[in-house]
Amino acid sequence: MHALITGGAGFVGSHLARALLARGDNVSVWDNFHTGREKNLPAATLAMEFHSIDIREVTAANLPNSRFGRFDTIFNLACPASPPHYQKDPIYTWETSVLGVRNMLHIAEAHGARLLHASTSEIYGDPQVHPQGESYWGNVNTVGLRSCYDEGKRAAETLCADFVRTGRVDARLFRIFNTYGEFMHPDDGRVISNFCVAALKGASVPIYGDGEQTRSFCYASDLVAGILALADLPREKYDGPINLGNPGEFTINELVGVLESVTGKKLEIQHFPLPADDPKMRKPIIERAQKILGWSPKVQLEEGLTKTLAYFATEIQ
Amino acid sequence: MHALITGGAGFVGSHLARALLARGDNVSVWDNFHTGREKNLPAATLAMEFHSIDIREVTAANLPNSRFGRFDTIFNLACPASPPHYQKDPIYTWETSVLGVRNMLHIAEAHGARLLHASTSEIYGDPQVHPQGESYWGNVNTVGLRSCYDEGKRAAETLCADFVRTGRVDARLFRIFNTYGEFMHPDDGRVISNFCVAALKGASVPIYGDGEQTRSFCYASDLVAGILALADLPREKYDGPINLGNPGEFTINELVGVLESVTGKKLEIQHFPLPADDPKMRKPIIERAQKILGWSPKVQLEEGLTKTLAYFATEIQ
Repeated sequence: MHALITGGAGFVGSHLARALLARGDNVSVWDNFHTGREKNLPAATLAMEFHSIDIREVTAANLPNSRFGRFDTIFNLACPASPPHYQKDPIYTWETSVLGVRNMLHIAEAHGARLLHASTSEIYGDPQVHPQGESYWGNVNTVGLRSCYDEGKRAAETLCADFVRTGRVDARLFRIFNTYGEFMHPDDGRVISNFCVAALKGASVPIYGDGEQTRSFCYASDLVAGILALADLPREKYDGPINLGNPGEFTINELVGVLESVTGKKLEIQHFPLPADDPKMRKPIIERAQKILGWSPKVQLEEGLTKTLAYFATEIQ
Repeated sequence: MHALITGGAGFVGSHLARALLARGDNVSVWDNFHTGREKNLPAATLAMEFHSIDIREVTAANLPNSRFGRFDTIFNLACPASPPHYQKDPIYTWETSVLGVRNMLHIAEAHGARLLHASTSEIYGDPQVHPQGESYWGNVNTVGLRSCYDEGKRAAETLCADFVRTGRVDARLFRIFNTYGEFMHPDDGRVISNFCVAALKGASVPIYGDGEQTRSFCYASDLVAGILALADLPREKYDGPINLGNPGEFTINELVGVLESVTGKKLEIQHFPLPADDPKMRKPIIERAQKILGWSPKVQLEEGLTKTLAYFATEIQ
């Protein structure tokens, strides 16, 4: 099988590439290193090809030749995903999400490939129901600082759903909740990387607002197992977006406690104002993933944080 | 002044073209007649040019020459807007909204033109607050039958807002609520055209659900006055999307009564099931338009319906 991963040098993409190679697939990786990093790529192997591609511009007519032939499965992960990264160039973010998914759907159609599209819990915005199931429509500002990502990802879901409805592409949507692990960008800007890097440097950890907002944290290997289960699902069993995340819910203040227990160090805290439109709580309902994919996350926060801290320790040397 | 209207052969566009010509502007009209109609165009005049353009594909590099030179103002109205029209080819609808606005923003930037972008009350979805002010974020399904339009329009708002925020284009968003009048498509499929055509043909009028869902109806000349006021607003006074609609609220059953009084005929009613995701109520708060634009709708429903019926009478002969 030949799998393409767009954004394959990013955090989730580089985990997925390793998992696909480990199970014997041929893997094409596309990335333009906007937020992805060359050092995230797996060791060179005959089973993998890398191409520098911007998915805003690639079409079925201008894509690079691959020695593995046409794609069987496309994992569309390319997009800046952390607020500081996606807000840095909001028009780029919007275009990567919106033009990117359109281009990848057309390529999937031309190749007869299955498309796995990375959506996000951000499509729920600042949710007014808690926890969030897939049938919740979300609470999203169309013209705010987060909109380039949130609305770009919402519009991408819509186009995928219409390609499915019109029978043109076997596209599947998964909504990623907060995920962490090795290969995260040290400047990712979200809470796990902020906290780990600060803890390792002996700096104070930044808390936005009172720290009572909650997040759920899924370890990368769990997320990848869910994505692969969805990729392997028989077509007739897919019937709409699926949440992939860990329903274990922690306040940011509780996360500090876990990190202190993992590091064995008391952490200093520095408070900052809550950014505009920041979600106050986010927690997935994963009953659909459990039922349809037979999937549940397995890695506890302490275990995942220990591995992640070890990774960041090598990153910030 | 040189104004471009995309979708200028459509319902609202053809009203706007007449209003701009009447005040002495030069007008370029672009349309691909997907839902617009050649017969809607104003009488030929030296002050107007027509070009057959699909805004999904046009760029600053490939647009037609105009004898009026570069654009001062662009009114981006091109997009199927009634549910039967926009659902007929959802991918076309999504692309027209999303790729279209991107192309028009780039053209506006290249010409140094102001962009007036037609958004819609549909971005509020099936609202959970009533009536709807501009600060309401909406309740929209990302993967439903209406999503191609709703999410396409939401993503278009986002890109406009980011072009404004980054100082690249003086773009302004207005959210159109239900509008009616001459030049509506007889097969528009929304309630006013359905009812007028049925009443004129002596057929039964279709009511979806129990008819207690509400709509507000703005006459076309009122809407156009609001759009022009927004186009003329000094740049520093624009600070975000503006609702344009008539806050007069009628149930569908009440609309039948008004139509019976205007036609002097008792109408027969046929009931159909409510379509999926159909909004149960929709009514604009227009305080921002009143304050910022000094605009309010003036035409009463009886008066507007009388004119609209006269138009449809000539259409269905």
